[in-house]
Amino acid sequence: MPLKRRTFSQRPPVNSAGLEPDQPASRRVPLAAQLPGKKLDALVVSAAPNVRYLTGFTGSNGVLLLWPAGAILFTDPRYEIQAGQETDCRVQIVRGPLFPALLKAAARKKFRRLGFEPGRLPYEAYETLQSGLPLGASLVPAAGLVEIARMIKSEWEIALIRRSVLTNSKAFENTLARIRPGLRESEIAARLEFQMRLLGAEKPAFDTIVASGPRTALPHAQPTAEPVESNTLLLIDMGATQDGYASDMTRTVFLGRPAPKLRRLYDAVLEAQLAATAAVRAGVTAGHVDRTARRVLRAHGLEKAFIHSTGHGLGLEIHESPRIGKGDKTRLIAGMAITIEPGVYVEGLGGIRIEDTVVVTASGCEVLTPTSKQLTVI
Amino acid sequence: MPLKRRTFSQRPPVNSAGLEPDQPASRRVPLAAQLPGKKLDALVVSAAPNVRYLTGFTGSNGVLLLWPAGAILFTDPRYEIQAGQETDCRVQIVRGPLFPALLKAAARKKFRRLGFEPGRLPYEAYETLQSGLPLGASLVPAAGLVEIARMIKSEWEIALIRRSVLTNSKAFENTLARIRPGLRESEIAARLEFQMRLLGAEKPAFDTIVASGPRTALPHAQPTAEPVESNTLLLIDMGATQDGYASDMTRTVFLGRPAPKLRRLYDAVLEAQLAATAAVRAGVTAGHVDRTARRVLRAHGLEKAFIHSTGHGLGLEIHESPRIGKGDKTRLIAGMAITIEPGVYVEGLGGIRIEDTVVVTASGCEVLTPTSKQLTVI
Repeated sequence: MPLKRRTFSQRPPVNSAGLEPDQPASRRVPLAAQLPGKKLDALVVSAAPNVRYLTGFTGSNGVLLLWPAGAILFTDPRYEIQAGQETDCRVQIVRGPLFPALLKAAARKKFRRLGFEPGRLPYEAYETLQSGLPLGASLVPAAGLVEIARMIKSEWEIALIRRSVLTNSKAFENTLARIRPGLRESEIAARLEFQMRLLGAEKPAFDTIVASGPRTALPHAQPTAEPVESNTLLLIDMGATQDGYASDMTRTVFLGRPAPKLRRLYDAVLEAQLAATAAVRAGVTAGHVDRTARRVLRAHGLEKAFIHSTGHGLGLEIHESPRIGKGDKTRLIAGMAITIEPGVYVEGLGGIRIEDTVVVTASGCEVLTPTSKQLTVI
Repeated sequence: MPLKRRTFSQRPPVNSAGLEPDQPASRRVPLAAQLPGKKLDALVVSAAPNVRYLTGFTGSNGVLLLWPAGAILFTDPRYEIQAGQETDCRVQIVRGPLFPALLKAAARKKFRRLGFEPGRLPYEAYETLQSGLPLGASLVPAAGLVEIARMIKSEWEIALIRRSVLTNSKAFENTLARIRPGLRESEIAARLEFQMRLLGAEKPAFDTIVASGPRTALPHAQPTAEPVESNTLLLIDMGATQDGYASDMTRTVFLGRPAPKLRRLYDAVLEAQLAATAAVRAGVTAGHVDRTARRVLRAHGLEKAFIHSTGHGLGLEIHESPRIGKGDKTRLIAGMAITIEPGVYVEGLGGIRIEDTVVVTASGCEVLTPTSKQLTVI
């Protein structure tokens, strides 16, 4: 306990609202309480972000065995000291593969129905678990249990996401002031990420996208060594990971005089982005929000140029549930953190995407991203 | 073809030795030729680095169906333009999940035994594939086929790894000159990564480790916001990813006057690192190299403080086969790129690790890392 407190004290909350960090045990207990209703004696949690969510442990090699009356985190000797500092959970240090030790503990407890994460566990690891099961025990796919809990963020988590968003926006704004034609896309990306880190991020939440000119039509373009030219588009899609929590923002700016056609595209995407944001509130479906963006773009004859979903949840991972996509029936719930990011892409001409991070509230949403969405010419 | 050439021409080889980039087809053909011998009609390649290796495609969502007479890369509309530029492979653009389209192609070709990557494919994706199989067809685990091919690097790949290593070392040296007590660990990490990127890296190959003082005893420590103090250790473990290829280096330097005990630890680790490097050559086992490092540390009474493997392969991923670990029977082959990184960790005192990237040759190895391993006091 004193060790854990020491770790958290290095990472104070962003605001002075008196928020206390979540205790991982307060996340494990309600999840473990769901297991009997799903006819599970215990759950094997192997996906790193899920392990982190339920234990606080940030190491790369950990597996959690969770049951209604307790939990054990298994990790290897490299993480012995760190695990002791980070988690309030019982820890067992294992030399070699973790699953045999976990199965031994499960056998001792006489667990018969062990849930596992089918979307995260590689087939081979499943086979390893399966072949080591005690007699009479079985593995049961239990998809998304932790992910569903993670969809709805606590106040503490929202404070961390807000801080990540502010870091990200500040890094963007600090860097934007220095962008000139002639800089390489890769150098702009390097500067954006350096700023993020100086402002407190651990790392980018994903590979920063900096694309200029016709390359903006590649929605997932990696920055090249090409210099950005004048009188063209510059698309920047960037996110920070700070204290483990992701942010995500896209802005498309004009370097010099944009062609009138690009201005019209920009206006259409902005209209779609604002309409979709206005459609967000607790109770509506994710598909409704996506449909709202699509309807605006259809009115501009651009529906076919919008080739991805309107957004996605984010938190400990950059892509989390819910997906804000076509026909998605998930109902939004207050406390979900999602992106709203319509875009249009025209091969040979360019692409425009505008993206904010927002938190769903009972009556609408709070837009966390403070950066201007006005058409910006630099 | 002209499109692919355009992409490669942005990324010339590091040297002027006249090396031509590998054609992905030249990697697919020998692998596909192995399939009949393994009683497979085709192989489903789903792990992103394996897809990249076999196609050149760098997008995040792609699956390859490979058979002796051909191959199809499946991806989604976000990557349509990019896939056309990057790969010499036939591409099929799919709206929605990729596996149904792949299964349809497999059914058309009347494939009956489909290999898959059990260590990489999540159980759920396996179930999706399984449930969509045509009548009479079956899924067969085919572990490590692509990974085994990837272990031995082509001259072109070695040139890329060498460039990544040089970028990484240069970034370290540029930054080291500016490190002073009082800088935060996280700021040092930010500066290292910024330098890497300015020198041509796409990103760090892994979360840069910067640890000072007793925190050096955490082998996987993340940088904190704590300032580094004087008269203590500073451990930096960093790697670049450049043109997709990883480098990996660790140096432990002294800020001010090190305690004599730490000097002795340093000397022991350096002796182990040099001995293990000298033990590398084609034909010896990975376990022999590991044993050599352990034997030196045992002679210094430090065997128990060495709590991880001596090294690992690297390439398109930071951790690849072979593992240079205890009892590992893999025989080294010329062209393997591996790390040599013994370390000792003493809780409360600190840790020392020294790591180079080397390439196995017939008679020994070439140490790619040019950075001094002499005890450095700054």
